[in-house]
Amino acid sequence: MTGSLTVVGLGPGAAELTTPAVSLALHEATDLVGYETYLDRVPQTTPGQRRHISGNRVEIDRARLALGLAAEGRKVALVSSGDPGVFAMAAAVFEAIETGEAQWRALDVRVQPGVTAMLAAAAHAGAPLGGDFCAISLSDNLKSWETIERRLEAAARGDFVIALYNPASRVRPEQLARAFAHLRQWKAPETVVLFVHAAGTADTRLTVTTLDAADQPVADMRTLVVIGSSKTRTIARDGITPWVYTPRSEDSPS
Amino acid sequence: MTGSLTVVGLGPGAAELTTPAVSLALHEATDLVGYETYLDRVPQTTPGQRRHISGNRVEIDRARLALGLAAEGRKVALVSSGDPGVFAMAAAVFEAIETGEAQWRALDVRVQPGVTAMLAAAAHAGAPLGGDFCAISLSDNLKSWETIERRLEAAARGDFVIALYNPASRVRPEQLARAFAHLRQWKAPETVVLFVHAAGTADTRLTVTTLDAADQPVADMRTLVVIGSSKTRTIARDGITPWVYTPRSEDSPS
Repeated sequence: MTGSLTVVGLGPGAAELTTPAVSLALHEATDLVGYETYLDRVPQTTPGQRRHISGNRVEIDRARLALGLAAEGRKVALVSSGDPGVFAMAAAVFEAIETGEAQWRALDVRVQPGVTAMLAAAAHAGAPLGGDFCAISLSDNLKSWETIERRLEAAARGDFVIALYNPASRVRPEQLARAFAHLRQWKAPETVVLFVHAAGTADTRLTVTTLDAADQPVADMRTLVVIGSSKTRTIARDGITPWVYTPRSEDSPS
Repeated sequence: MTGSLTVVGLGPGAAELTTPAVSLALHEATDLVGYETYLDRVPQTTPGQRRHISGNRVEIDRARLALGLAAEGRKVALVSSGDPGVFAMAAAVFEAIETGEAQWRALDVRVQPGVTAMLAAAAHAGAPLGGDFCAISLSDNLKSWETIERRLEAAARGDFVIALYNPASRVRPEQLARAFAHLRQWKAPETVVLFVHAAGTADTRLTVTTLDAADQPVADMRTLVVIGSSKTRTIARDGITPWVYTPRSEDSPS
């Protein structure tokens, strides 16, 4: 088979955060597959390139479409936001391969990494991920709320900085408040909490607060929430949002 | 003050994984500050640009040098590998600001994110970070081994995929073996373990093994180690290294 599939991550939003490797893969593809919002971000530079726009929210179907095109000999780029391996399309592709046609295992499948939202959000705020950290998706359509609570507790007990992806949805607007309530069992009220809306775009908005004050969050699916470790600190600045960072050493002043 | 400091992440190694935003910041800088290995990766495109090569391994000194230059009115880029916010220079910069001269708080300080090693390593292997995950640095010159063990235990109890940065050093070659021994108390022997050497470069080497067989690792400071969750799986392929992924759903076959 001469077809190929490259799963690419566009990065968080701004074109200048898309790696040249991803831009090249997009340019060389005969077929682009992706959710409409993401394909809209890809410049049309390749004459004759086909776009398979998926309004469909079922990731596994999109993955199968892309694999089927590659099996037909097409050079396919499957387009994710952020990094494709972090709560995005790459895992769906390998699930589709494992449960799909045997010939798909012989395909040339590659993943091109990108800047995931957590890194852009952290960069905007300072260096909140400066120590050990974890990333948890609050979307509970793929795992139970019990699993999410178990991970939040483990992350709190390990004193990790916690990045929360998919913190709120129209279907489940209350789950972020539940996550905060759960974390308050182990973490101090003054723990630093960040809301970063549209990280890595021209519209980034940062809110710095604390765990006890984080009850009325303005979070949507484009918001990345960071909950500090016990060491995460703010640096006050005249008239502007403070910087937030987590010291590298556990012996720093706190 | 008209000076500025941008802390940039070059990405994991290959030039095509450096974002255009970082390339622009490097091009526009009057002064580059960084560890020699990283500055060697920056093309010389700007006549008159000064390079402050630091053989010095003390990150906080490098941060102070960069801040001092910015305070003099220079346009400084401080160069990190990977993402500057993940076990790299950004946290050191904010530590230096907090403990340093008051005027440094008025400086224009920005962080430009990059592709961190964990994302490039995962992309090379498939999608091992497909579920919730955490990142832990095994370097114990900034935190105690007790803290590292506490975090490994928490990560295991939460069934996170675990990415280990700085898994081995000349000074402490034994600590990765200690980490594996510690994790075996909670994680199954057949847990998938990956060693990814020089992720995101032309020299990437991937080894896929299991936790019980991971005793004689070939790991150095350029190796990223990934320890799967209970759901992390391999997909066998004829004659080549299997793909590794973590399903998005906890209900997938296992």
